[in-house]
Amino acid sequence: MPSKYIIGIDLGGTNLKIALLDLSCRIKKKHILNTSSFIRKKSLIRAISDSVLKIMDDSGLKKRQILGIGMGLPGPIDADRGVVHFFPNIPGWMEVGLKKIIEKKLSIPVFMDNDANLMALAEYKLGAARGSKIAVCLTLGTGVGGGLIFEGRLFRGSSFAAGEIGHMPINEKGPECNCGGIGCLESYIGNRRIMQLAQKIFKRQVSLEELSRLAKNNNKKAVKIWEKVGSQLGIALVQVVNLLNPDCIVIGGGVANAGRILFDSVEETILSRAMIVQAKAVRVVKAKLGNDAGMIGASLLVKSKIWS
Amino acid sequence: MPSKYIIGIDLGGTNLKIALLDLSCRIKKKHILNTSSFIRKKSLIRAISDSVLKIMDDSGLKKRQILGIGMGLPGPIDADRGVVHFFPNIPGWMEVGLKKIIEKKLSIPVFMDNDANLMALAEYKLGAARGSKIAVCLTLGTGVGGGLIFEGRLFRGSSFAAGEIGHMPINEKGPECNCGGIGCLESYIGNRRIMQLAQKIFKRQVSLEELSRLAKNNNKKAVKIWEKVGSQLGIALVQVVNLLNPDCIVIGGGVANAGRILFDSVEETILSRAMIVQAKAVRVVKAKLGNDAGMIGASLLVKSKIWS
Repeated sequence: MPSKYIIGIDLGGTNLKIALLDLSCRIKKKHILNTSSFIRKKSLIRAISDSVLKIMDDSGLKKRQILGIGMGLPGPIDADRGVVHFFPNIPGWMEVGLKKIIEKKLSIPVFMDNDANLMALAEYKLGAARGSKIAVCLTLGTGVGGGLIFEGRLFRGSSFAAGEIGHMPINEKGPECNCGGIGCLESYIGNRRIMQLAQKIFKRQVSLEELSRLAKNNNKKAVKIWEKVGSQLGIALVQVVNLLNPDCIVIGGGVANAGRILFDSVEETILSRAMIVQAKAVRVVKAKLGNDAGMIGASLLVKSKIWS
Repeated sequence: MPSKYIIGIDLGGTNLKIALLDLSCRIKKKHILNTSSFIRKKSLIRAISDSVLKIMDDSGLKKRQILGIGMGLPGPIDADRGVVHFFPNIPGWMEVGLKKIIEKKLSIPVFMDNDANLMALAEYKLGAARGSKIAVCLTLGTGVGGGLIFEGRLFRGSSFAAGEIGHMPINEKGPECNCGGIGCLESYIGNRRIMQLAQKIFKRQVSLEELSRLAKNNNKKAVKIWEKVGSQLGIALVQVVNLLNPDCIVIGGGVANAGRILFDSVEETILSRAMIVQAKAVRVVKAKLGNDAGMIGASLLVKSKIWS
């Protein structure tokens, strides 16, 4: 009997990542495409199905050897029906029945969820949140995504939209956010906002990588920027900690690479501002699975759906 | 065979309420004592056990007819071990093994939880949140308490401290809160803060009842105060709505009696500031069980523990 595999897909505003994984969720092969090179919805859908066929073909696999396709998607979706409500950062998607479209094209079962949810699932099962009871996972990038794992299960809310930590307001008044809200965390610490702040302070363009390097070399301006980011993130996490009393907070995404200086500022804010029982109960850790977390989480989703 | 009953206790900073309930959680008899007349810990514990014996005696009931005693307590506790960590508004309680003390005195099983959790349980099973999937319940009084019911079960967090909506900061900078935090919701809309605001605006003492009455008669100053309270409460609820995607938010406690003007302002804030999918999914309703919710919730706790 030929062995079985899973396809894990992580669609982002920047990259379309497709992996072939074995049943232990180890990545055997992966392809990365540029999302923005597929301008129309149709061409992006074709790129997804072509990539699935290509990665199977490259490995000499037949359809019956694929347990299922898992997809992490960057926006609000109906996970049960497999419908994309919309993608904030990819234009042209409104109420798209993506599950049915791909299943019809490929005759392989398709399951989908929010990308941050799948990252959280991966970190819980195989990464930094293993063994925790109440886990809160964040990805800090262009957007600030979040996923909640309560007692081993993804918490999706009443309409699959839970976990939007990036859109918890940290001030009554504040910058307008893309989501329509005011003073959302993302409007303070999204990639672009940090880079805007750095440009204002350094009077030139500074990449996040350089900003992290500068801070590690004790550049005072850079240190101050990361401390500010950490304290703003910390305030949103005080909200989360007092509300949910988690034992583990996992922080991933590019911005998390700022490292110790960011994490110290987050922890200091939680310890000084959260309630004592909740603050003592929680540890804040860096994500372990890096850029693969989405694809690994997508494969875990397939396993949980097929074998539930 | 004699029928069985449950004792439900709701201990607050102001009142100690004790009820005898039947197995359908209907209150058959209740006593209300003034908490502050028992200054020492020992005398408050004796008042609790004496009241239990008295309510049984008044009804001619034997111990074997009491299924158990449920207690709602106003502070962080270890619900499994039955230990009170402390009460913010009743001095002298630190790490008290209250469950064991009462069980030893009375030889009846004792179960306990946070008072806001039990109010939430009662509103979910028998009140305004019936049938909801993800319910968030608030009590607005001297303090602002909260309880979370996810898919029919109380969500207690990793160390029984979840649900502290009153201590979610709504501003980075803001008033210092009793909990040690900064800018917590409670430090804006706790009873005393609303009355302070009213005194400043009316240049005299105004009770909450009067403030509600004035607003209902279209007094502009009073209307403005309630709109402000509603919008601050609304911002904390935008945090909760974007994070948890609830389908029902129940608001109870004295402050909720301000009625339509408060609820309209809360709803307007959620609709204008929360994410669209989450804002559409949630209804905001007034609590149904009033001052009895804590005792009813305590009796539900006993049933769930004895019959689990």
